[in-house]
Amino acid sequence: MAFSFSPIRKDPKTGARTGIVTTPHGSFHTPAFVTVGTLATVRALSSQDLNDLGVEVALANTYHLHLRPGGKIIGKMGGLHGFMSFQKPLFTDSGGFQAFSLGFGMEHGTGKIGGFFPDEGFQKQPQAEKWARVDGDGVTFRNPITGEKTRLTPEISIRIQHDLGADIMLAFDECTSPLHDYSYTKESLERTHRWAERCITSHKKNRKQSLWGIVQGGVWKDLREESARFISSLPFEGYAIGGSLGDKSKTQMHDILEWTVPLLEREKPVHLLGIGAVEDIFNSIERGIDTFDCVSPTRLARHGYLFLTPKSGGSPENKFRMAIKHKEYQLDKGPIDRHCSCSTCKTYSRAYLRHLFLANELSYFRLASIHNLHFFLRLMEAIRESIGKGRFLQLKKAWLG
Amino acid sequence: MAFSFSPIRKDPKTGARTGIVTTPHGSFHTPAFVTVGTLATVRALSSQDLNDLGVEVALANTYHLHLRPGGKIIGKMGGLHGFMSFQKPLFTDSGGFQAFSLGFGMEHGTGKIGGFFPDEGFQKQPQAEKWARVDGDGVTFRNPITGEKTRLTPEISIRIQHDLGADIMLAFDECTSPLHDYSYTKESLERTHRWAERCITSHKKNRKQSLWGIVQGGVWKDLREESARFISSLPFEGYAIGGSLGDKSKTQMHDILEWTVPLLEREKPVHLLGIGAVEDIFNSIERGIDTFDCVSPTRLARHGYLFLTPKSGGSPENKFRMAIKHKEYQLDKGPIDRHCSCSTCKTYSRAYLRHLFLANELSYFRLASIHNLHFFLRLMEAIRESIGKGRFLQLKKAWLG
Repeated sequence: MAFSFSPIRKDPKTGARTGIVTTPHGSFHTPAFVTVGTLATVRALSSQDLNDLGVEVALANTYHLHLRPGGKIIGKMGGLHGFMSFQKPLFTDSGGFQAFSLGFGMEHGTGKIGGFFPDEGFQKQPQAEKWARVDGDGVTFRNPITGEKTRLTPEISIRIQHDLGADIMLAFDECTSPLHDYSYTKESLERTHRWAERCITSHKKNRKQSLWGIVQGGVWKDLREESARFISSLPFEGYAIGGSLGDKSKTQMHDILEWTVPLLEREKPVHLLGIGAVEDIFNSIERGIDTFDCVSPTRLARHGYLFLTPKSGGSPENKFRMAIKHKEYQLDKGPIDRHCSCSTCKTYSRAYLRHLFLANELSYFRLASIHNLHFFLRLMEAIRESIGKGRFLQLKKAWLG
Repeated sequence: MAFSFSPIRKDPKTGARTGIVTTPHGSFHTPAFVTVGTLATVRALSSQDLNDLGVEVALANTYHLHLRPGGKIIGKMGGLHGFMSFQKPLFTDSGGFQAFSLGFGMEHGTGKIGGFFPDEGFQKQPQAEKWARVDGDGVTFRNPITGEKTRLTPEISIRIQHDLGADIMLAFDECTSPLHDYSYTKESLERTHRWAERCITSHKKNRKQSLWGIVQGGVWKDLREESARFISSLPFEGYAIGGSLGDKSKTQMHDILEWTVPLLEREKPVHLLGIGAVEDIFNSIERGIDTFDCVSPTRLARHGYLFLTPKSGGSPENKFRMAIKHKEYQLDKGPIDRHCSCSTCKTYSRAYLRHLFLANELSYFRLASIHNLHFFLRLMEAIRESIGKGRFLQLKKAWLG
């Protein structure tokens, strides 16, 4: 079955809506948290774990997989679905974000739209030394594994994404930094728009995979509006909002969503790239976002931060999480969250998880990642249910106050 | 229920036998491979994984748990069983092996009886600098986490093991090095025997946990025989054969077993400390050993070595294993071992596991550890079945040629 999106229920008071996305590998419900599995694995978890958790959709990173093991190899192994043994809908990004995070993002010390998350897999470089250079035709990266130069263009990105075989592909774009001025952002946006057209041309004969366009334009209203209008004029099957903002720019994110989402064709799904904080999820769903992806549940788990529902003390003040390293948990026989039904909370105590974390035991990373992913997946279920019942704002208030 | 051991079937041609050990946390079948979970976790695996694999018995390390989180904390958390959420029979060692591996073992560059395995959890030190000093009363260690001096004596080891609450405890001993001369080994053995008596005295009032004595004596027949006679004269409920041999001393290990096992009370179980190679398992079971413990299945998994049954190409020449890093597996769609029924082999290809290994992905460590543990657990089942049917030597021949 080819790609389709069916909105189901629109919240009467906000832009929030539920829907269902259908792909050749089955369906997923929106709003959806798209679990990130950068290198064809969600870190520390198996595909069986993802199935047990009820993960409906995941995302892998084209740039990272291009470096290793390479799209050709994954293509020969039956694509990402065969390679990972995960038969559910998958996204791939385009590699465009790395053009930013290894280029200007590194130079400017900034990161993706939800705040700066340097990618763990790469060495941090002095700000002055860029790992990627953008030109009109594409991006030249230095391969951090081999040191060799690697080239990505719209055509190469689409070819790799065809090899990877995800159900949903993203157009190759350039992500700009909040430190870029209007003039650079405008020039970059024109490049991104030309690349979007080239992606569509390259993708033309592929009917199994769905291609979504990316809206850029920095923090400028006219550029964002121009981008939303242009991207929605192209035959994409969905959209993504990209870009980078500094850490303290939540209101800028809200502005960007309010400028762009209403200009996109609303019968198509809209993804927000790299978002994962609880507050951001509520605020962007409220503004019409259907899907997000973020590494934060599993990354924060690995760093010792475990999520808590409001009933168990989670709040905007503590970012809905606790740090398992604290000595107060040394003899704590309770689960991470006594209202959580994940397999970690059903089986292990805070004291045991703290011990595993402090000892850097491998088993910790999986048990913690299971809990955090479960937290986000159940949050999304609750949000979908609230929209279905016309109670989205009440749920938001119960969580955010 | 208290501790008991019931031999079931003796092989008519060799010393091999089957039996069943019953403990307050249930029973396990012998010969048994005792899975090592040093820090109250089998590395990369959860207790649910152990149950799924059919692990019947595991071992945790007293020395490591004494350093963190400490026996007192585990005691307050319901002992190891409660702390780990693993309700099956558990062993603890005594910390005596670390007196060796951090002391003379470090000085002499040698390790446990099955060959040298430096413990990954500790920094390697120049050979001249010992981390542990033995005196008549016990051992003083330097705590590698805090740098503080830590003391272990027979009484302290037993007290910690009482806190840990394993079903089977080991007496506090001194392990000697193959580079020790006769005179030092004899002096050390007398110390180990006095410590064995002190362990029994300290343990007297505890009826829930079973205490096993350790036979030492280096590579000298008279000392080994003296030790076996002395240890079997004490009211231990089982025995362990300890000691260290160099890498090329398989025949010395056979000699030691042939000298000692017949002198022990044969209605009690006999453990061989730190053994895990396939050949060693067959050879020591043939000489009357009932249980072994070894980190090798999980450690070798983490280092990229995956076990193969003879049907799939495993042999003494390749040590029954393959190195997953090799390029020949880059596009290999088959499982690690096509005759293996573990969840890893049922789900993932060699190509995918190779990718995860080369990318140092956390999920690799668990999937590989599951396969290797499954291999050893199924090997033990096959050995028990062969003894039951009087076909132990035929099975040994099929594996070792």
